[in-house]
Amino acid sequence: MPQPPADLLTARHARVRAAVGQEGLDALVVFHLPNIRYLTGFAGSAAIAVLARDEIVLITDGRYVTEVETQVAPACPGLRLVKVDPTYDATLAGFLRKFDAPRVGFESAHLTVKRHDALAADLRDSPSRRAGALVPAERLVEASRVRKDAFELGTFRRAGALISAVAREVLRGVRVGQREWEVAADIDDRIRRGGFERPAFDTIVASGPNGALPHARPGERRLQPGDLVVLDFGGVYDGYCVDITRTVSVGTPGTEARRIYDAVAAAQMAAVGAVKPGAAVTDVDEAARAVLEGHGLGRAFSHATGHGLGLEIHEEPRVGPRRTDIPGVPPAGRDDRLEPGVVFTIEPGAYVPGFGGVRIEDDVAVTASGVEWLTDVPRELLVV
Amino acid sequence: MPQPPADLLTARHARVRAAVGQEGLDALVVFHLPNIRYLTGFAGSAAIAVLARDEIVLITDGRYVTEVETQVAPACPGLRLVKVDPTYDATLAGFLRKFDAPRVGFESAHLTVKRHDALAADLRDSPSRRAGALVPAERLVEASRVRKDAFELGTFRRAGALISAVAREVLRGVRVGQREWEVAADIDDRIRRGGFERPAFDTIVASGPNGALPHARPGERRLQPGDLVVLDFGGVYDGYCVDITRTVSVGTPGTEARRIYDAVAAAQMAAVGAVKPGAAVTDVDEAARAVLEGHGLGRAFSHATGHGLGLEIHEEPRVGPRRTDIPGVPPAGRDDRLEPGVVFTIEPGAYVPGFGGVRIEDDVAVTASGVEWLTDVPRELLVV
Repeated sequence: MPQPPADLLTARHARVRAAVGQEGLDALVVFHLPNIRYLTGFAGSAAIAVLARDEIVLITDGRYVTEVETQVAPACPGLRLVKVDPTYDATLAGFLRKFDAPRVGFESAHLTVKRHDALAADLRDSPSRRAGALVPAERLVEASRVRKDAFELGTFRRAGALISAVAREVLRGVRVGQREWEVAADIDDRIRRGGFERPAFDTIVASGPNGALPHARPGERRLQPGDLVVLDFGGVYDGYCVDITRTVSVGTPGTEARRIYDAVAAAQMAAVGAVKPGAAVTDVDEAARAVLEGHGLGRAFSHATGHGLGLEIHEEPRVGPRRTDIPGVPPAGRDDRLEPGVVFTIEPGAYVPGFGGVRIEDDVAVTASGVEWLTDVPRELLVV
Repeated sequence: MPQPPADLLTARHARVRAAVGQEGLDALVVFHLPNIRYLTGFAGSAAIAVLARDEIVLITDGRYVTEVETQVAPACPGLRLVKVDPTYDATLAGFLRKFDAPRVGFESAHLTVKRHDALAADLRDSPSRRAGALVPAERLVEASRVRKDAFELGTFRRAGALISAVAREVLRGVRVGQREWEVAADIDDRIRRGGFERPAFDTIVASGPNGALPHARPGERRLQPGDLVVLDFGGVYDGYCVDITRTVSVGTPGTEARRIYDAVAAAQMAAVGAVKPGAAVTDVDEAARAVLEGHGLGRAFSHATGHGLGLEIHEEPRVGPRRTDIPGVPPAGRDDRLEPGVVFTIEPGAYVPGFGGVRIEDDVAVTASGVEWLTDVPRELLVV
């Protein structure tokens, strides 16, 4: 697994330390594994990190010690390994007891009440503790992760090319008579053989009326003439998630299928056209939504236009509506503005109960002047 | 997805309600999805449940309303659907404000500090609230899940037969010269085509020296003559996880490889022989550990003997050591006793840095008189 370059890790540390300082904190205890990976390059399944003023402490267990000593620590400036003994939280408490910092923040969105209460009790009961209170903190690492750096954008370009190659193969292979789950198994196998660590989420193959459910699970249904089939899949490449959707027609599409497809395709182009530095994410959503409303498909578009991509499949920004009157779609949380380096999906859809659904999804990065497509697969309605 | 029979769901509710009552609580807010599935049969990706004295309330969003109304609610006694509006936690708070119960427990191991604090503030600020404090609670559903009921055991028997068929196919297909990740991709594809929803965890294919890491990730290394290769994989079937490991030899094994393999196989048989109702989980671990120590491989066995299986791949009981002097292995949390219906893995291993590793894993259920093997794959060292 390639490690992020030292200068970019240093820049990440500096940005997050600035955010930690702005909250009046001296250090941050990081529990969320994608945040730990972002700050250190550590890709294992268990760790706690403490970002202090002059070092970043990585607590992990015996399974990962060799990997950290030989690969992670040499590449990560200021990293100090602390081995788990006997448990993660006891090791963290032991570290904090000796740690000289009055205000230590912790990721309150990534620590359970049970662990927090046990940790707080452990620290309260130890008279030797020099540090002060544990202070809940939020989004201090996530905010830094929204704008991808050069290492991450390079990874996304490779991942986008690879998932596009997988998608082109997949689209060539779809046949009438296949069961949904067989198509899904084919896709997952191509993702693995196409250079990915694993699928990024449970692959969706939703045929005919099943396509009306945006999150349908692939089942026993066979692809039939007249079906629209939604194929939504993604892969994890060097830790980063990419995500693509195409909708195909089994046999010549009817007038209504064609009409819905063209409306969704136009909505996607309108959304992509709205992407530029300084634009609000809600404007990108609104661009897609206005097109679908113009085709009488406003209520059929029952989800947000997109979501951020990165070390997680769903991260900031949420590219959703500003309005609160759209059934089923909660509004975007903040009035986020796009900046160069933000990477997200653009995936409008239309879902018609009893008939089926259409979704078209690509991944884009915001550039200094506009937008860069990370995925590259024909967007015309493919007839299989 | 088959729903658990109504009488078994009723029995699950009764057991958990008894545990809730013993804690002095009137109701329990359930956040953990496997716990929600256990209590209701709901298999979606987002929900909150409230187990009250006379009903079980399921809060979920628009994506799942049709499924709950048509499949889940008709099969689950006392289930009442509450639709999310506008967010999960606001809906829960709205429900609790009108809920007439002085002491409501919540799953403190499955709620983040952030969500808890927001929920507590929301309830504190509402003068109309009739309910009292939110009380942290632990293991109230998990304790009931340890003993599997007839529906679950039936599912495990089918899943065990299916993963055994996959394993026999996999073992026939392993060839010298394959890369680890290619073998892993083959395994995952066979799991999908073998009747499973998905792999239960990231498949492990660890060849030669890589086998010395119990949690190695499959890489570019090709299988070479003289290698021992650890193959560890599992599948999710109707929501339940099964897990199996076999170790094969590429070409005729050397004396040391054969010696280690035979010791691990003997350790596994000793552990299986210790399984019976009333036995302590630590005794099962000790049976395996004593055999390996007798072969000078005590320090090479650097993990617990097994873990519970169910709606999660790792659940109770942890079949680990009582002793605290074993490097790298924390002791079992409680002195759990086996009872009929408990399902777990038995997977001793030996890991020799620079040389490689051996692990042999099967899944078993405790019966009224002893043990039932759920997996059925030859255990002799296979030479490929």
